[in-house]
Amino acid sequence: MKLLILGGGFGGLRLARLLNNKPGIDITIIDRFNYHQFQPLFYQVATAALDASNISFPLRKAFHNSKNVRIRMAEIERIDTVTKQVITNEDSYSYDYLVIATGASTNFFGNKNLEQHAFPMKSTVEALQLRHKLIQNFEDALHTNDATELQRLMNIVVVGGGPTGVELSGAIAEMKKYVLPKDYPELDFSKMNIYLLEAAGKTLAAMSEQSSNNSLTYLQRLGVTVKINALLQDYDGENVTLKDGTLIPSKLVIWAAGIKGNIPAGIDPSLVARGNRIKVDAFNFVQGMNNVFAIGDIAYMEEEAFPNGHPQVAPVAIQQATLLAKNLLHLRQGKIAQPFRYNDKGAMATVGRNLAVVDVPKPKLHFGGFFAWLIWMGLHLMLILGVKNRFFVFTNWLYNYVTYDQSLRLIFKEFYRKDEVNN
Amino acid sequence: MKLLILGGGFGGLRLARLLNNKPGIDITIIDRFNYHQFQPLFYQVATAALDASNISFPLRKAFHNSKNVRIRMAEIERIDTVTKQVITNEDSYSYDYLVIATGASTNFFGNKNLEQHAFPMKSTVEALQLRHKLIQNFEDALHTNDATELQRLMNIVVVGGGPTGVELSGAIAEMKKYVLPKDYPELDFSKMNIYLLEAAGKTLAAMSEQSSNNSLTYLQRLGVTVKINALLQDYDGENVTLKDGTLIPSKLVIWAAGIKGNIPAGIDPSLVARGNRIKVDAFNFVQGMNNVFAIGDIAYMEEEAFPNGHPQVAPVAIQQATLLAKNLLHLRQGKIAQPFRYNDKGAMATVGRNLAVVDVPKPKLHFGGFFAWLIWMGLHLMLILGVKNRFFVFTNWLYNYVTYDQSLRLIFKEFYRKDEVNN
Repeated sequence: MKLLILGGGFGGLRLARLLNNKPGIDITIIDRFNYHQFQPLFYQVATAALDASNISFPLRKAFHNSKNVRIRMAEIERIDTVTKQVITNEDSYSYDYLVIATGASTNFFGNKNLEQHAFPMKSTVEALQLRHKLIQNFEDALHTNDATELQRLMNIVVVGGGPTGVELSGAIAEMKKYVLPKDYPELDFSKMNIYLLEAAGKTLAAMSEQSSNNSLTYLQRLGVTVKINALLQDYDGENVTLKDGTLIPSKLVIWAAGIKGNIPAGIDPSLVARGNRIKVDAFNFVQGMNNVFAIGDIAYMEEEAFPNGHPQVAPVAIQQATLLAKNLLHLRQGKIAQPFRYNDKGAMATVGRNLAVVDVPKPKLHFGGFFAWLIWMGLHLMLILGVKNRFFVFTNWLYNYVTYDQSLRLIFKEFYRKDEVNN
Repeated sequence: MKLLILGGGFGGLRLARLLNNKPGIDITIIDRFNYHQFQPLFYQVATAALDASNISFPLRKAFHNSKNVRIRMAEIERIDTVTKQVITNEDSYSYDYLVIATGASTNFFGNKNLEQHAFPMKSTVEALQLRHKLIQNFEDALHTNDATELQRLMNIVVVGGGPTGVELSGAIAEMKKYVLPKDYPELDFSKMNIYLLEAAGKTLAAMSEQSSNNSLTYLQRLGVTVKINALLQDYDGENVTLKDGTLIPSKLVIWAAGIKGNIPAGIDPSLVARGNRIKVDAFNFVQGMNNVFAIGDIAYMEEEAFPNGHPQVAPVAIQQATLLAKNLLHLRQGKIAQPFRYNDKGAMATVGRNLAVVDVPKPKLHFGGFFAWLIWMGLHLMLILGVKNRFFVFTNWLYNYVTYDQSLRLIFKEFYRKDEVNN
């Protein structure tokens, strides 16, 4: 059985690991990158608390000594479900079964200005770009004599009050509090503003009332200016304009207000559901197909408890991959496949030192503060791939906690040689 | 006293630290980067053994709580010794005393082809670029069906048999031996060749006969094809041509065969000595000037024991900075300055696991192998700035030693946003 997996994220990687060295299954993983990304900690890479390598795991290392898993770095160009092959910028790959696990990327909702000027944070490299920009702005602030320009460099706008926006603005607020004034004693940090814009009426709207309220309290305690019911109209690289006419001068706008599924070309438009996701049945079969699956952020499955599809989070991808691995093995034995049911173990987000919120559905529990923060850390440490990464993340956290210092404030500029960029 | 230091390398950083919080001295450091680079370990960043951040220390962090040190990220455009100021791409800075500590960069000796196609390794970012290229070539090798192209991707040519070239080719040979066959089981690594080209008659020519011989033995033991008396004629990105007509097809040529001082514009050509260095007297005063110093790799000082200038290594820069700090303090007290004498504590280079060579001048000692390798590690650990960096380097080394695995095989591509590159 030739199994082709598109994407080495939480879903694709889990599936391949569960089928690793299973006889009779020949697996190829195609990914743009040569590493698995631990997305939940991108914001800590962006705020100089963790190294990019701490949350990245080389895909090839995950399959050392594997007899049936092949990895190819390539950009997917098109799926051809008729001839059963995937065409990439490098080669074409034929399949018996295809698993689309291409995840989601930033949705700018067609706003070209935003796409050009705002910083997204949906990949390790984007997190590093954001880190560089964040620090470079303060370096630039030292060179300016213009008060308006200075204010523009010291205003940071985070758009989107979901977990990413909350975690990011909290972390930046802690940099403002603990580290930046030491790095830039010449600048007046009372002038630095961190805005968090949320279009809905509250932050962490998908969580419980209590956690949502807690997150707002924590953010305000850290000095983040939270604007709810704030709709962004435009951003030209210099000023953010809100729908109500408010103008915020800023050189750094971080866009965490929307994602969309990365649908490869060749998927029929009739199969596309809300959020640019691919409609799948309860077995993760793409609707109407019997040899193409979609799992994780890219899959749109309606379940009784989730009539508008599942939340686009790692646990869904991991659970779908786990079930699909079982079903694929059963399939070969002629057994009946099992439908997917999402086991929601809860949600959490961290705002800052000792400040996090946790919701547990069964038994229904909401808690915040130090204990929630410990749980958040423990769970994330457990989920990171690789003993060494786990150790380094833990050590960095310990160091940051003890010293109040995110110490990776390094601008590795001019990263690529000119002739490389054109390759 | 307004002291302006150009460059935060071994010399510039040491000087500023020694004068930190000394009353009456107002210090500004200008550097292109916002971090100090630990150059001796670039080759380990390039070969995926260490993180770039492990050997980089944020300059601002080194001067937290400093009352008299200011740091500016800028590119130096010109020195004007008449009006006593330095002009950068950002601002101009006036000085009472100027210290040029701009170090050295790669010398391609005017060969434009080499400059365009060969990879230098004289900055952290260049070390990362090299790492990416090194790994990307094997990814590309999986996509090619052309035998010639495959061989070209699997031939690596290191030019220059000094410490950098020896350490780098040794480290790549260990990747070939321990890691790459596990990452790319589809490739035949008996076809991978690592060439080390040296124009002179031996490797590590600046070291003792014994160490030089040992380095050759170690390299050959690791499977490096060492070619001595090999003069490179040209490299067009596809083939290396030697003066004797030999052709080596290769997609990756690393140039470690020459450096030149980074002389800022505004220095009189009559002051330039061999290796593009600035002539200084025994007090590191630039010849004929009484308020401009040059230290470290950029300084050319003739000493009795070093009639052609000092070796361009960190200890010289550090010792010159240490003496200059003392002399500057004496100067203010009207005391007589002390001339520089280099205290050569020896030289060392590592070739691989348990394989290093060490020369000690007094008492005259040469040793190699495991013990030399331990000394090499201990000394480098001591010299790295920052307890956390030291700890992370040590942990990475320990991990690599135990697992035989340089695990940072990550390609962080497309590092910069397009609109950033043009900034």
